[in-house]
Amino acid sequence: MELPSKYLQRAVEEMSSLPGIGKRTALRLVLSLLQQEKREVVGFAQSFIDLIEHTKMCKTCHNISDQEICGICSNPNRDKSTICVVSDIRDIMAIENTMQYKGVYHVLGGVISPMDGIGPNDLNIDSLISRLEPEGALEVILALSATTEGDTTNFYLYKKINSYPVKVTIISRGIGVGSELEYADEVTLGRSIINRSPFDLNISN
Amino acid sequence: MELPSKYLQRAVEEMSSLPGIGKRTALRLVLSLLQQEKREVVGFAQSFIDLIEHTKMCKTCHNISDQEICGICSNPNRDKSTICVVSDIRDIMAIENTMQYKGVYHVLGGVISPMDGIGPNDLNIDSLISRLEPEGALEVILALSATTEGDTTNFYLYKKINSYPVKVTIISRGIGVGSELEYADEVTLGRSIINRSPFDLNISN
Repeated sequence: MELPSKYLQRAVEEMSSLPGIGKRTALRLVLSLLQQEKREVVGFAQSFIDLIEHTKMCKTCHNISDQEICGICSNPNRDKSTICVVSDIRDIMAIENTMQYKGVYHVLGGVISPMDGIGPNDLNIDSLISRLEPEGALEVILALSATTEGDTTNFYLYKKINSYPVKVTIISRGIGVGSELEYADEVTLGRSIINRSPFDLNISN
Repeated sequence: MELPSKYLQRAVEEMSSLPGIGKRTALRLVLSLLQQEKREVVGFAQSFIDLIEHTKMCKTCHNISDQEICGICSNPNRDKSTICVVSDIRDIMAIENTMQYKGVYHVLGGVISPMDGIGPNDLNIDSLISRLEPEGALEVILALSATTEGDTTNFYLYKKINSYPVKVTIISRGIGVGSELEYADEVTLGRSIINRSPFDLNISN
């Protein structure tokens, strides 16, 4: 596709470098910018420059933060003895939205995936191990995706953490709340029967 | 969704101001930027600033251009007596890609749509009418979408152009090349029968 302006060409190329944005979508997005006021487009662009210049990774948990230590790690009301291991900062937001968790987090930055060339050394695993003792960790919750890669990473982490006096737990897998039983796949359904728990009137699942 | 950084918050808001980009997608896109080198992100942002600062609208046809007059209007090999009216510059690119058209264009900047508050005065119609005589236009091709709004705009333009010695034509509507007849809607199929043309061995449709 030949574009009538080299600046348009360049902007479309940059936009289509974003994951999941093809050339056609990129063109649509860039043309929508062209219909805006110059001031608005400069604000749009500046937000990404500010982002890359001013945000940091939390030195403790690798969450994104405006400070050296993120708002969760520096919050005295959070339980430092419970560390929830997640793949991505989006997972932190998802768990925070549930309002069910008061511990702290550790962002691995991915999961072990030989197919994508991601090994244990590419993830924030050493920094997880090295914070267990100083923070007096009692429990590490593994909250990775229920995929082969997630399971591989869970297994690797379990072997690493096992030599410390820390309980390793994993978030439950089973029928999603609100799901019809008949549509659950058989592996999930099987796991949910094996991992059945005492019926408790007080938990409104 | 509460984000752990105000810069991230702002970047996600800006990204989700683009059409069709929701908050979740915006977050995914912005986080992918955060994984890039600072230099790359600055280049990404700068491309939009350059775009809005340096691109112009062609004074003749309202196409996007780096010059006052776009590459198509200033090309001596294009037939200035045939003007193809389109809604959007993306339509120019689509028609150019067919390599079937050697005339020039006129970008309306939309179609008449009372529902969206777009009337004839919001479109580049006066500039179309005023170029007919000076450019010696012989034919105006209406190439708008086959929608109610497109039809309304076609009708409006026809009435306006009709008082000039200019032929008004419309791009053909019918069964899409490669489409199965049985899946065509009945209006399209009906139009394609009414607008049937002599069978010509030389046109490999």
